[in-house]
Amino acid sequence: MSKSDKKIRIGLFGLGVVGSGIVNIISRARNAHAEIRRICVRDLTRKRAVEVDPAILTDKADDIFNDPEINLIVEVVSDAEASWQIVSRALRAGIPVVSGSKAMIARHLPELIDLQRRYGTALLYDASACGSIPVIRNLEEYYDNDLLLEVKGILNGSSNYILSRIFDHGEEYASALSRAQQLGFAEADPTFDIEGYDSLFKLVIITVHALGVYVDPDNIFTYGISTLHDSDIRYAREKGVKIKLVAQVVKVAPDRFTIFVMPEFVTPNKYIYSVDDEYNGVVIRGECYDRQFMFGKGAGSLPTASSILSDVMARLHDYSYEYKKMNFDGRPVYTTDVRLRVYVRYGATTAVRELPWIEIREQYFSAAGSNYLIGDILLSDLIAARALLSAPDIFLAHIPLFFTDRDN
Amino acid sequence: MSKSDKKIRIGLFGLGVVGSGIVNIISRARNAHAEIRRICVRDLTRKRAVEVDPAILTDKADDIFNDPEINLIVEVVSDAEASWQIVSRALRAGIPVVSGSKAMIARHLPELIDLQRRYGTALLYDASACGSIPVIRNLEEYYDNDLLLEVKGILNGSSNYILSRIFDHGEEYASALSRAQQLGFAEADPTFDIEGYDSLFKLVIITVHALGVYVDPDNIFTYGISTLHDSDIRYAREKGVKIKLVAQVVKVAPDRFTIFVMPEFVTPNKYIYSVDDEYNGVVIRGECYDRQFMFGKGAGSLPTASSILSDVMARLHDYSYEYKKMNFDGRPVYTTDVRLRVYVRYGATTAVRELPWIEIREQYFSAAGSNYLIGDILLSDLIAARALLSAPDIFLAHIPLFFTDRDN
Repeated sequence: MSKSDKKIRIGLFGLGVVGSGIVNIISRARNAHAEIRRICVRDLTRKRAVEVDPAILTDKADDIFNDPEINLIVEVVSDAEASWQIVSRALRAGIPVVSGSKAMIARHLPELIDLQRRYGTALLYDASACGSIPVIRNLEEYYDNDLLLEVKGILNGSSNYILSRIFDHGEEYASALSRAQQLGFAEADPTFDIEGYDSLFKLVIITVHALGVYVDPDNIFTYGISTLHDSDIRYAREKGVKIKLVAQVVKVAPDRFTIFVMPEFVTPNKYIYSVDDEYNGVVIRGECYDRQFMFGKGAGSLPTASSILSDVMARLHDYSYEYKKMNFDGRPVYTTDVRLRVYVRYGATTAVRELPWIEIREQYFSAAGSNYLIGDILLSDLIAARALLSAPDIFLAHIPLFFTDRDN
Repeated sequence: MSKSDKKIRIGLFGLGVVGSGIVNIISRARNAHAEIRRICVRDLTRKRAVEVDPAILTDKADDIFNDPEINLIVEVVSDAEASWQIVSRALRAGIPVVSGSKAMIARHLPELIDLQRRYGTALLYDASACGSIPVIRNLEEYYDNDLLLEVKGILNGSSNYILSRIFDHGEEYASALSRAQQLGFAEADPTFDIEGYDSLFKLVIITVHALGVYVDPDNIFTYGISTLHDSDIRYAREKGVKIKLVAQVVKVAPDRFTIFVMPEFVTPNKYIYSVDDEYNGVVIRGECYDRQFMFGKGAGSLPTASSILSDVMARLHDYSYEYKKMNFDGRPVYTTDVRLRVYVRYGATTAVRELPWIEIREQYFSAAGSNYLIGDILLSDLIAARALLSAPDIFLAHIPLFFTDRDN
């Protein structure tokens, strides 16, 4: 209950979309007791979206690391390797860090946890998953018990925007993608968003705070929406469902969980059905509270910056993640021995019919070349067939097996 | 980052619906490091919904207060006065408390904050507002800056259940109420829920954590749904809106906010439109993240108990509310000098036409006696007219002035 009179003096790395938002938001939050003391950028000559005193700009990391007044590093650079260099160096120097670099964090989380422990400092990264939705903090602090069963959601705003344009506005895939790029929801190279990697990295981070288990992203089945075809959209419309790119981690037994990122046929009775445009939505399911749904802007300059601000203010009170669940007895173990029902549309790549299907439930052949089948298969067999499934004439979507009411 | 090896030994007051849920949930949460050491009930002979070792039951509060092993009191008794006695005594004795008693907390919050400060102990009460939705904790810890503009939501499950039955299932008011009572969503005496007081008390607590300002519940305009009439339902249906009981605290200027509980005409583009049945939904609006929506079970034994469990586990790490915003510079001031648009349906009480309307925009007279008018009026004038507006032939609903898209 003591009021801290500490002042946060920030060294900021990165002044792109998010970095500019941080500068903007820190200046507005007069009770944050935070100031940006130095900003390190790659290119000093670049025009910025926000006005900054040129005297605090630098292109030398040392100007931040060697400033004894700086007591927090905020890192929002886009390059994952640069991000790792900055964050690991800061932690080794005992300087706490707030980061929004999901790819870097998802790949290095075990080392980052170890560095925090060894050097007695803190790394906060709520902005790295779902922008303004406080999903990490809530999993860590509020759903911090054994009763959690599932976290499932739409974690990527760009791909969701594209799918929304298609399903709610009848737009074509290509035009939806180019509109997303114009609006700044999708990068010039949209692979990261469209192929599911952005969702994957967020899911890896979420899983550490949900179940206390780190899963290497390379071991998680990840399928995107780049091969989505008019015939898939037509099929989904006929069935009265929307296709959404869904990331999920689910306990399939008290001691086992599974995890994957895949397009999914979502029925109108699910919470995530109405998560449209660039929004994110996360469903947290537990043994006793049933389903909690959190919904908000998942990306963008100010929503992400406001999440960074929450982490900055948490440092006023010396907050750090405790990774409590990593010490739990009976942590569940990752399994891919899970039966899933999927829709596979294919053209010339008829080899998909030879996958080790447990049961094929529907087959459709068309002279136009858009064949599909619906069948049950093990997740491990999907992983083994990754190369085949990445053929450009194939699109895969998960059909959740239990279409019970409000089954998120 | 230190792992606490503390064990929480609970003295529990109350073994009704929520108390039984707590016993159930603590036994399931094996990593909670919590045990229930003693349970104080009013009537030892009563049959309980959960099996409890009779040796730990007592009807003497002293058996809990005098047990030096007990390091946390959990209080979920239904009587507000008894709750105050227990909680204030515990705090004075330096024992931290987790409470779910919203009426008591809303009435005594300034004293309770003072007691926590004076005796250096903690009172947690996330379960008191919106059951399983972690709204207090998020307002306190995550939306802990100056950028918050509004918290608005459906905070009472019982009245929402009744309104859902009416609007989604075409049921009559009386039958919806009795069904709610059968299902345990509404008390035998439903006044507390139906007249808006339950929402009011939650809103008072939320406002302390949202804006750092305590408002006495008696000074807040509160209108319920007990006088809702078929003609109101018909009117709302014709306009394509649902009537929901909405609680809100809104900044109307940088230095002023207003607050009230009132039925509202909710258009389908609002998040809360789809909060049905016994669910609660809260919209948090901020300057930079736009709107966050949190949705979940707002009441019931296990959802409420799981929220209590989160507070219990927070005590493992000595968590307490800091009431940070109460120390903010430039806290906004409560104003009732706010123009609202309302719908008033009336029968014989034609005096409503003589209220100090700023502007009457529609008038309708019917031989059947269901007259209505729509007009703009100051909130302060509604407060002054409370007695008149409580006539049984009057129903009042708020019509939000700005029907912009997704204006929550």
